[in-house]
Amino acid sequence: MKASAHYAPIAQRLFDDVRAATASRLGVTRESYGAGESRAIGILTEFARANGFVTYVDRAGNVTFSLAEIRRERPVLCGSHMDSVPEGGNFDGLAGVVAGLLCLLRQRDEGRRGLHPLRVLALRGEESAWFGKAYLGSSALFGRLPRSLLDARHRTSGATLAACMREVGADVDAIAAGEVLLASHAVAGYIELHIEQGAVLDDARRAVAIVPSIRGNVRYRNIRCIGQAGHSGAVPREHRHDALFAAAHVINELDEYWKTMLNAGADLVMTCGVFGTRAEEHAISRIPGEVDFSFEARSADHDVLTGALAAFDATLKRTAEEYGVRFETGSLLQTAPATMDADWIAVLEQAATQLDLPTQHLPSGAGHDAAMFADAGIRSAMIFVRNQNGSHNPDEAMRLADFMDGVELLYEGVNAFV
Amino acid sequence: MKASAHYAPIAQRLFDDVRAATASRLGVTRESYGAGESRAIGILTEFARANGFVTYVDRAGNVTFSLAEIRRERPVLCGSHMDSVPEGGNFDGLAGVVAGLLCLLRQRDEGRRGLHPLRVLALRGEESAWFGKAYLGSSALFGRLPRSLLDARHRTSGATLAACMREVGADVDAIAAGEVLLASHAVAGYIELHIEQGAVLDDARRAVAIVPSIRGNVRYRNIRCIGQAGHSGAVPREHRHDALFAAAHVINELDEYWKTMLNAGADLVMTCGVFGTRAEEHAISRIPGEVDFSFEARSADHDVLTGALAAFDATLKRTAEEYGVRFETGSLLQTAPATMDADWIAVLEQAATQLDLPTQHLPSGAGHDAAMFADAGIRSAMIFVRNQNGSHNPDEAMRLADFMDGVELLYEGVNAFV
Repeated sequence: MKASAHYAPIAQRLFDDVRAATASRLGVTRESYGAGESRAIGILTEFARANGFVTYVDRAGNVTFSLAEIRRERPVLCGSHMDSVPEGGNFDGLAGVVAGLLCLLRQRDEGRRGLHPLRVLALRGEESAWFGKAYLGSSALFGRLPRSLLDARHRTSGATLAACMREVGADVDAIAAGEVLLASHAVAGYIELHIEQGAVLDDARRAVAIVPSIRGNVRYRNIRCIGQAGHSGAVPREHRHDALFAAAHVINELDEYWKTMLNAGADLVMTCGVFGTRAEEHAISRIPGEVDFSFEARSADHDVLTGALAAFDATLKRTAEEYGVRFETGSLLQTAPATMDADWIAVLEQAATQLDLPTQHLPSGAGHDAAMFADAGIRSAMIFVRNQNGSHNPDEAMRLADFMDGVELLYEGVNAFV
Repeated sequence: MKASAHYAPIAQRLFDDVRAATASRLGVTRESYGAGESRAIGILTEFARANGFVTYVDRAGNVTFSLAEIRRERPVLCGSHMDSVPEGGNFDGLAGVVAGLLCLLRQRDEGRRGLHPLRVLALRGEESAWFGKAYLGSSALFGRLPRSLLDARHRTSGATLAACMREVGADVDAIAAGEVLLASHAVAGYIELHIEQGAVLDDARRAVAIVPSIRGNVRYRNIRCIGQAGHSGAVPREHRHDALFAAAHVINELDEYWKTMLNAGADLVMTCGVFGTRAEEHAISRIPGEVDFSFEARSADHDVLTGALAAFDATLKRTAEEYGVRFETGSLLQTAPATMDADWIAVLEQAATQLDLPTQHLPSGAGHDAAMFADAGIRSAMIFVRNQNGSHNPDEAMRLADFMDGVELLYEGVNAFV
């Protein structure tokens, strides 16, 4: 399409500039409410100002871009996040915000407007990698950031979330008080373009998908398995309380449970992203006295999540008895599954047909800020763009042509949304 | 016994002084060929000099103490090690050297001598925790320190073993050349008192044991399990290459194999002391792309070791296929099982009878420098002293009365040895 050919180089330059500014050893690193995320926001802000857009920092530290015109209709928000996991890929999050900026450019250039004025929302703190909890920027907007989380420590700097939020201008007192910073009724809808983060579209040879639902999750951030350290040669098996053999047994049991559930047709993924003996005391010749690990289960089905959690807890109990260890799970974190708005989906389907763009429905395995907006009662939608090599890793890839197809669909969708 | 009552306070003071000088966060930390080990040697050297003993640093950096008298007979060596694991206990190693010093004191005070002059050997670098390989000080003495090991890095400082050895006065060029620094034929025998490091004596209500054999081991210091990182929500199970689930499966399979072997009556322990996802890139929401872990099997039976290694390698192969990952084991480290000298054992049994000291035979599950001396063709023996709470941990404990029983047996044994 002509429009895409014109805007593709602009997108490419934005992607390149942000990548260069946030490059780390292997991939990109944009810390939630931290330096990399702020540098990325800075580059988009500069671009927005150079194009005459209005820029606004909200009380959660997120940034909004819009055309410089006064309209009284409730806006439609087009958002995604600016942070990344450590050593992550360039497009996870960033693609959605760049897509929104391209829509603003086209509205300006073509003079087209939807019923609702478009605002592009660059959200902070979507990745749980930094403070152990996801959707910080969006949940703060809705007064739903758990107050205790403000004391959580940044994984590398050790700074508290409260300090990091204050640093970027967020109103930490209001967030701590659970104040609603964005009233749901003041917003017409929310839409988010995002890379798929899996290989379904690549396998199906389609550039884009419309998302009908988003998986929820249950998580323990830091489970401690506590056994007893000892000399690896001198303690027979029956006298051991080996924290590592016990924790590995838990993982293996989980894997068996997972296979059973998949065979029964359930929607479920399970991950222990962090797992290990303690660096300050482990040794080849020492029975590990303690192992720390994380647990996460995701499903689009609330009952499956509840079942997985019960199975996990039961496995801990059985394993504790069998191996003579104990487990401390800490508090449970939960995010409910979310359903996307049927009207939005219809609008996007019609737009795809008009654009002659082959598409499909694809539930989101990963969580997204869109789930927070849906949960707050805002009509929400998502567009997935095909990507390669997964996400949350430096090899993550996305073809520019696929992205521009997604932007076409987003542009038509935003303009047609009523 | 009167002698014990006299020497017990001296032992207590030495233990207390060394503990105070090498105390760390939880226990004691005496780095191999490093600061803590040198501080401990310094305290014993000071004590030896104050008592008129002769001190000699050998070309491997170990220290020998002896009475200041010229005798031409080949010496009997009474040794143990001065290092500890990180956050270890006070008596693992140190007890044997202090025991030797007490025997020297008694020989001086009582005018008793054995056929062979007693030399007390404070060995360096017995623990594998620091450079990944055990028996550094003793294997260097026999020209058996693998040359490549000199490039191994200290686990915390990152300094090479060569640099650390040079620092304490060792002749690194001779060690690198595999020169024999201690000729086996120049030594009449070797004896080592050591805490048991297990609970067998405590369960049997005996203070001391005579060791008939020492377990050997096979080890991989650092196995890499390489899968593919990815988003924890977006990749279904059948597309995953989860390094953590794969490595945990290996551990669980090992545990099953171990149970089977124990049921068949084999002597075997298996340990993965170090295991974990990579701190610089792991996250709760990321499928681990890599896991690093160690493997160790110990047995008094050479064939059982060979079998365990074959089972481990086969498990890696099966798991690699099942989980779509690959394993890199690095090089294999092996220490052969060792048999203690029958004459030494007879001498110790007779001494125990004379002392009216109940004792028993107890094979050593842990490896010891004594195995290196035996392997070099030197007639070797070991005495175990009862301890509590295992070893290689801060809670390791030993009663002074039990220790003094061990010293009695050692003293009579050394004096009677021909």
